[in-house]
Amino acid sequence: MIYLDNAATTFPKPESVYENINKAMREYGANPGRSGHKLALQGGRAIYETRELLGNLFNIDNPMNIIFTHNGTDGLNLAIKGLLKPGDHVITTSMEHNSVLRPLKAMEKVGVKTTIVECDKIGLIDLKDIENSINDDTKLIVTTHASNVTGTIFPVKEIGDLAEKNNIVYMVDVAQSAGVYEIDVKDMKIDILVFPGHKALLGPQGTGGVYIRKGLDIMNMKEGGTGSKSNLLIQPQMLPDKFESGTPNTPGIVGLGAGVEYILDRGLESIRNHEKELTRYFINELKKIEAVKIYGPKDAEKQAAVISINIGDEDSSEVSYILDKVFNIAVRPGLHCAPLAHKTIGTFEQGTVRFSIGPFNTHQDIEKAVQAVGKIVKQI
Amino acid sequence: MIYLDNAATTFPKPESVYENINKAMREYGANPGRSGHKLALQGGRAIYETRELLGNLFNIDNPMNIIFTHNGTDGLNLAIKGLLKPGDHVITTSMEHNSVLRPLKAMEKVGVKTTIVECDKIGLIDLKDIENSINDDTKLIVTTHASNVTGTIFPVKEIGDLAEKNNIVYMVDVAQSAGVYEIDVKDMKIDILVFPGHKALLGPQGTGGVYIRKGLDIMNMKEGGTGSKSNLLIQPQMLPDKFESGTPNTPGIVGLGAGVEYILDRGLESIRNHEKELTRYFINELKKIEAVKIYGPKDAEKQAAVISINIGDEDSSEVSYILDKVFNIAVRPGLHCAPLAHKTIGTFEQGTVRFSIGPFNTHQDIEKAVQAVGKIVKQI
Repeated sequence: MIYLDNAATTFPKPESVYENINKAMREYGANPGRSGHKLALQGGRAIYETRELLGNLFNIDNPMNIIFTHNGTDGLNLAIKGLLKPGDHVITTSMEHNSVLRPLKAMEKVGVKTTIVECDKIGLIDLKDIENSINDDTKLIVTTHASNVTGTIFPVKEIGDLAEKNNIVYMVDVAQSAGVYEIDVKDMKIDILVFPGHKALLGPQGTGGVYIRKGLDIMNMKEGGTGSKSNLLIQPQMLPDKFESGTPNTPGIVGLGAGVEYILDRGLESIRNHEKELTRYFINELKKIEAVKIYGPKDAEKQAAVISINIGDEDSSEVSYILDKVFNIAVRPGLHCAPLAHKTIGTFEQGTVRFSIGPFNTHQDIEKAVQAVGKIVKQI
Repeated sequence: MIYLDNAATTFPKPESVYENINKAMREYGANPGRSGHKLALQGGRAIYETRELLGNLFNIDNPMNIIFTHNGTDGLNLAIKGLLKPGDHVITTSMEHNSVLRPLKAMEKVGVKTTIVECDKIGLIDLKDIENSINDDTKLIVTTHASNVTGTIFPVKEIGDLAEKNNIVYMVDVAQSAGVYEIDVKDMKIDILVFPGHKALLGPQGTGGVYIRKGLDIMNMKEGGTGSKSNLLIQPQMLPDKFESGTPNTPGIVGLGAGVEYILDRGLESIRNHEKELTRYFINELKKIEAVKIYGPKDAEKQAAVISINIGDEDSSEVSYILDKVFNIAVRPGLHCAPLAHKTIGTFEQGTVRFSIGPFNTHQDIEKAVQAVGKIVKQI
């Protein structure tokens, strides 16, 4: 199986991820932050280490400002719903995932107003369109860092500057960039950073997180046991406890730590260059096949390792089915949970066949993918 | 290390839990329910199998009425907040965990009214007290199945009958009973069942779930990508998608399935008898030590394998520290995130030293615990 569905979840993970998860479960499978005995403390320390590693990766001073969640979507809901109040105005873009758009749509029912800024045909945002959408009620700008449909990289630093200048909270969904691209919450003026753990951060499924800038007031949407201030019936207000009720996913978080450690060891730049090189080669080869339509920037410098294509007017599911069945290549067809992105690039009916490259893909994987696409073109 | 903190999380897990999680990560670590290729389908099937196993365990007809969550607390929040509306009245008990009490307290701010029925000194509820608390606005009764402080078993079937007779929704927190005690949602008239996956169900941390009876209208508190109806900006309303946004914890759910399979193979009754036998022995031996105060029913037939004690007026944290440090025995001190339970049994200041027995504890473990308590009594 050639796995080119890394934008959905990376596979495989580094060997250390599997091993550390196994070790966490077998050797110190107690409940961290609760009981205070040796095994519980060991679990608590392991979780803290992952917080620290993520802090290093994203240039976050205080690891306690990082909250662990069930997945990226959980984090986006926590931040969007905890921040916004009736009357608030939000600016977002047409390239967002449903994990951003659906919570915002739900918040419209309680009086939040949303402006969805249209991106251009290759998924690029015009900074002026964001600026022109700002009004007195604008509380939040929320954008992706890289589109999960076209890979298009957003000018996060510029948007961050704009938000800061206008005293607006900036939230970034780094689902497709964390673990590959430089993310510096200070330099980029990011107030809230939301990440899944199981994509390019190379952790297991069941992990994700949110960084919340110090001083930003976010309401908790859940309450429960935190192991802290157990005498009170109200939720403790200190971070991360305020947002981390119930038993955490200790082995998952340990696995995420191993993933981030792998990234820091190999180097972001090394991973990025590897993925860029394969993306560049793939796009160049696909350009040579006439029936293939490629979406997005078609430029490895301007997009993450996500390449969406179609073959003529062929249904994207049909093409993906053949890739899986005949060529043993795993990709994702359809709308990728981002319907407005497909309206933006003109593929709402057809969907796209999405190839997404990970740190363990090889040049040969991409060669085989190119050959497979070529063969399908000839057969159809 | 003698691990007697199984009420916090069971440790160890059955070997098959570790192995199946490892296998899921290494062999089919794709994103289930999304892409449609072989690996994604295998992940989706594995998740469905766990739903089916839980359905078997709890006598739930349709596995799609089981929703996977991050942990038990996540499930309780989902159900409590999704069900209740301003003006609704809720009846609960003084033996509940903060994962029930804190969300209810938070809901009071939006106009939900709560009656907390006082239990007696051993944590027992009087059915009449619940009945007398019912009024025209009573929408929900929520109780634990077994106390996490005293182990006291609640008359769930009787409460279920009472709720049904009065057309009230009955929600049960089975954090301390699922995997050991018979739970039949039909026979017990349970409308909403909430379980963590990592306690006696023997799955890994990062898992939990909620069963919602067919026809019961619960609002979703989160939205996001579900892999279904991706063209829409509103959340799909079918179960379980309505409540399962974002990538699920596939390896965790696979591990939970292995845990439930172990339980079904070994037999609930066999596990229960094993734990009862150790509980009976432990209580009997502790009764012989004069300085030891035992809380709860002190009767293995009337309590889960959770035994809370104190040694004279000694601080529970101090005793637990000695048990860990000197005797290598892991227990949990303090309030166990259930402050009102401690007010009920009279240990709000002192807390209790909680021993909790799991399916892999041995007679020798309990003998050593008894000896350790005896030695501590002599030293203090």
